[in-house]
Amino acid sequence: MLYGYWRSSAAYRVRIALALKGLDYTHAPVHLVRDGGEQHKDAYRALNPQGLVPCLVDGAAVLTQSLAIIEYLEEAYPATPPLLPADAAGRARVRAIAQAIACDIHPLGNLRVLKALESRFGADETQRGEWVRHWIATGFAALEAMLAGSAATGRHCHGDMPTLADVCLVPQVYNARRWQLDLAPYPTLERIDAVCRALPAFQAAAPEAQPDAR
Amino acid sequence: MLYGYWRSSAAYRVRIALALKGLDYTHAPVHLVRDGGEQHKDAYRALNPQGLVPCLVDGAAVLTQSLAIIEYLEEAYPATPPLLPADAAGRARVRAIAQAIACDIHPLGNLRVLKALESRFGADETQRGEWVRHWIATGFAALEAMLAGSAATGRHCHGDMPTLADVCLVPQVYNARRWQLDLAPYPTLERIDAVCRALPAFQAAAPEAQPDAR
Repeated sequence: MLYGYWRSSAAYRVRIALALKGLDYTHAPVHLVRDGGEQHKDAYRALNPQGLVPCLVDGAAVLTQSLAIIEYLEEAYPATPPLLPADAAGRARVRAIAQAIACDIHPLGNLRVLKALESRFGADETQRGEWVRHWIATGFAALEAMLAGSAATGRHCHGDMPTLADVCLVPQVYNARRWQLDLAPYPTLERIDAVCRALPAFQAAAPEAQPDAR
Repeated sequence: MLYGYWRSSAAYRVRIALALKGLDYTHAPVHLVRDGGEQHKDAYRALNPQGLVPCLVDGAAVLTQSLAIIEYLEEAYPATPPLLPADAAGRARVRAIAQAIACDIHPLGNLRVLKALESRFGADETQRGEWVRHWIATGFAALEAMLAGSAATGRHCHGDMPTLADVCLVPQVYNARRWQLDLAPYPTLERIDAVCRALPAFQAAAPEAQPDAR
């Protein structure tokens, strides 16, 4: 059972990983906006005290944090394809790309942060958009350098098969488009994003393909 | 060779992991403030295009992102003690605690974010302090619920030995004290932080014990 929201980047990552591994699951939509946000209700907080999506319930295990969930899937369901390479240095590179997105881009443009910018500093819609684009552009410039400058980059972020890095990249590029960031300065990211989105697993996990997409 | 900064939470995490595993290394201080920030210079960006610390160079491997570095140490140097438990659900719990800090608390109070709040919204010192404390308090309330409410919590965040979760917790509590956050609402976090800081490895990794501490 995956508690998520169609447009949440973090939930989107987990959906991609589940789809790549061919693991079936039930959707449990948590509407992040309606009625003050269902993620803040007691019923959901009993599952995840952070009040954030996603949360994956697998038997007795209640799993939170998208990257921790995907590492769990990798360990508990070592189905083809693996989402991390076999060597320690390669695994570190893939995790670093994933975390450059999950730690240094995504949290800064999250809904709760944008709400806080509005309530604390009166940031209007234009300023909030500039804020989000600034952090995505900063992170994407670094990622473009990391990817374009490395022989380890292939059709995908690491070699020719999708890994945890691609699983994080595609939702962040989706988010960048939503915020109308010009992607021209990041040709490697655009290329890899297009390669990924041609794959059925990425298509099945896309926000618009979810039952709660409005 | 560890490129870091004495007061960086992310570098502090890696120092704790290296000390717990008894791995020797050379310090390469990167001053984050002086001269506009040494992390932005070409020499450092050639190593890490993100322009963030830490960066660990281990032979031919250039490793970035603190959690990716620590997972690498766990895999490449499986020395006692392990920093992740043996079972997949336990590993997921430890990683989720670590990521609740590394993704959802720490990035929001980072130096570059505080600078952006000042330059974009005119946030003064008081407002920047309130911003940082707000996100630490939000995250700590969730962590306190996760830790106090779980039978898996022991002397440490997960059982009775330090794990990746403790490695992330202690630098964040250090940071919270620096910002004068009242820790009384988080007795479990305070207790575990004290248990950790009594250990020689955590003491050796402390900011004030570093050669670049001013």
